[in-house]
Amino acid sequence: MSNSNTADKVSHNVYFEGKVQSLGIETEQGKATVGVMKKGTYVFNTGAPEVMEVITGKMSTKVSGGEWLHHKKGDAFEVGANTSFEVVCETEVAYICYYH
Amino acid sequence: MSNSNTADKVSHNVYFEGKVQSLGIETEQGKATVGVMKKGTYVFNTGAPEVMEVITGKMSTKVSGGEWLHHKKGDAFEVGANTSFEVVCETEVAYICYYH
Repeated sequence: MSNSNTADKVSHNVYFEGKVQSLGIETEQGKATVGVMKKGTYVFNTGAPEVMEVITGKMSTKVSGGEWLHHKKGDAFEVGANTSFEVVCETEVAYICYYH
Repeated sequence: MSNSNTADKVSHNVYFEGKVQSLGIETEQGKATVGVMKKGTYVFNTGAPEVMEVITGKMSTKVSGGEWLHHKKGDAFEVGANTSFEVVCETEVAYICYYH
């Protein structure tokens, strides 16, 4: 992962050899990232709790110890703090992720 | 502007010295970009016609020769081919832009 962030530039994060990338944004609901994932399977770890919303595409997620959930455009779901979750992107997916 | 794009990586575009950045995505509606703009005023030029949708934040736009229009979260608007449009971001803005 690489990270570039200065006061006046949008921050850019690169994960999984560039297959997942995100841009940082300050919103009315606090810090968030907007990102794109290529088709594929990924595992993410959370620090703060997150609310993730699908902007376009289809994905499935499974929080550690939970069941597979399916998400499409417009769906939002919560992921708790300090856990990991698996993500399967059936298409390319754009998302916004809010950190609380 | 810099551009990096390989087959298996998300493409990343940087405009206005990093104050506007976007990520490429292939959607059911064709090619699109998801981006973040810092507060500020920008002028963009279109090639193909675009439909731009605000994911979060507030912005105003004026297509060449038109009037100022105000857009908030969830709003979508069209910009014709081969024109320019001014954008004023009153907050940081996340958007998705579809190219037709």
